[in-house]
Amino acid sequence: MANINKVAIVGGTHGNEYSGIYLLRQWQKHAESVNRPSFDTTLLMANPHAYENNTRYVDSDLNRQFLLHLLQDEGLNNTEQRLAKQINQQLGPRGQASTDLIIDLHNTTSNMGPSLILLQSDEFNLRMAGYLKMQMPEAVIVMEVDVPLEKQPYLCAIAQQGVIVEIGPQPQSVLRHDVLDWMQTMTMHLLDYVELYNTHSLPDLPDVIEAFTYTETLKLPEDEHGERLGMVHRNVQDRDFQPVQPGEPIIALFDGGEICWHGDYEAYPHFINEAAYYDNNLAMSMAKKISLPIP
Amino acid sequence: MANINKVAIVGGTHGNEYSGIYLLRQWQKHAESVNRPSFDTTLLMANPHAYENNTRYVDSDLNRQFLLHLLQDEGLNNTEQRLAKQINQQLGPRGQASTDLIIDLHNTTSNMGPSLILLQSDEFNLRMAGYLKMQMPEAVIVMEVDVPLEKQPYLCAIAQQGVIVEIGPQPQSVLRHDVLDWMQTMTMHLLDYVELYNTHSLPDLPDVIEAFTYTETLKLPEDEHGERLGMVHRNVQDRDFQPVQPGEPIIALFDGGEICWHGDYEAYPHFINEAAYYDNNLAMSMAKKISLPIP
Repeated sequence: MANINKVAIVGGTHGNEYSGIYLLRQWQKHAESVNRPSFDTTLLMANPHAYENNTRYVDSDLNRQFLLHLLQDEGLNNTEQRLAKQINQQLGPRGQASTDLIIDLHNTTSNMGPSLILLQSDEFNLRMAGYLKMQMPEAVIVMEVDVPLEKQPYLCAIAQQGVIVEIGPQPQSVLRHDVLDWMQTMTMHLLDYVELYNTHSLPDLPDVIEAFTYTETLKLPEDEHGERLGMVHRNVQDRDFQPVQPGEPIIALFDGGEICWHGDYEAYPHFINEAAYYDNNLAMSMAKKISLPIP
Repeated sequence: MANINKVAIVGGTHGNEYSGIYLLRQWQKHAESVNRPSFDTTLLMANPHAYENNTRYVDSDLNRQFLLHLLQDEGLNNTEQRLAKQINQQLGPRGQASTDLIIDLHNTTSNMGPSLILLQSDEFNLRMAGYLKMQMPEAVIVMEVDVPLEKQPYLCAIAQQGVIVEIGPQPQSVLRHDVLDWMQTMTMHLLDYVELYNTHSLPDLPDVIEAFTYTETLKLPEDEHGERLGMVHRNVQDRDFQPVQPGEPIIALFDGGEICWHGDYEAYPHFINEAAYYDNNLAMSMAKKISLPIP
């Protein structure tokens, strides 16, 4: 792959995920912390309207608006659809983007710790994961590579390379000191990685790292009127990336019953009881733990 | 005090505090769990509009609208001001309320555990606290008795007796199994207490219990434009009701500095980093720990 010449760090894609928003403010005052010799860094506050309203989004989830056919549909012009088109002009356009790498900063209410979500498993991404685990062993690598990049609706997918920094637990509209520090630390390592990658100066990386590869999403049970019949079971609450065996309870029903994990594999739940996924009635995502070879 | 003949259990005063809202649904289906022989129980979903919008409130905080002069001001008619007047007709009216006791169910994003906030320190409230601590030792008793009841703007203050069940940590718009169980358990103990009080059947109560009495509220530091300059320090995050000594750091400044607790007493912070208090730039409330004699 060619060098990374232009990097964009994006915060506020969701207006009530505060860590990235506050870090952007700091970095705007101290550009030296995000600048590196071999590439240009742009800082972008993605959805100031949502932040002003202290909400995830005004009309629709900005981070689901970046598929090519949505960006090209001139009939779509609510707040976030318009924003998506603007951002696509600024950092993209998708397919021939001026930005080589987008780092999009997110928070989750789930206890996911400092997670890095990769959307591709090419050499650039895998070495990034290897470097990050070496520098920050507590980091969690999540592979969302079940669909190709061009089918990912995320903001960061408009560049040739895009990653999501996803750190929790942090309630919406709250700024936690520990979560902010994790995000700052991880972002610095990612920028350092790009610099080392560009200058062919990477240290020896581990042969293999632990990672989690997304498999499926579980919904909360509903009745025929769409009313929820249960909630995430206390046995899995806060236990993101801890193993769940087939037959173990994962949902507590309000009538006193339980729903158990019905898959045929040891699953690693994450995004457990994420507040923002209540719109869609999602309970958690599942993953498999893998040993990821680093090229 | 006379017997308690009418009790109202209120949920959804804030539309994104889910525990009370979901418990109300269960109790509506199973009235036997909230009924007791010596009094009538009413269940009220206070702000369905806010719940439908998945937000704390639509126009203004419902739980600050219940001062007498606000209820009597016909010029105040936004969503929550109208709701407040309706609820005051239904459960009040304030000063001559048809409801004897209101139990208002709330969640906090702070790590306050199962807390009961008392607004008065008369025999009824103190014995309630003593009974609750006996039945549920993990319960935390918080006394907000710095102003008399008639100056409290809360929904539950329109009855002669009102208490706030305040349980966390739970992010807004999330339902946690453990938090739901705590709220269910505490509410059942409170109803049992009223039954025992009415029938003069209370068991021997402890002579003294541990409680926390509110002293003051601390704000986050701001610059001249109202932009925040710091956040809750990691040393106090999640340590609600743990002691802080004068001189210990409580705020981390973004420029790397710290603000230390400047009071002249050992303080017990609570509502630490509560999401809903960001509107007002509040960092935490302070309390003193006391030994509360039970009459």
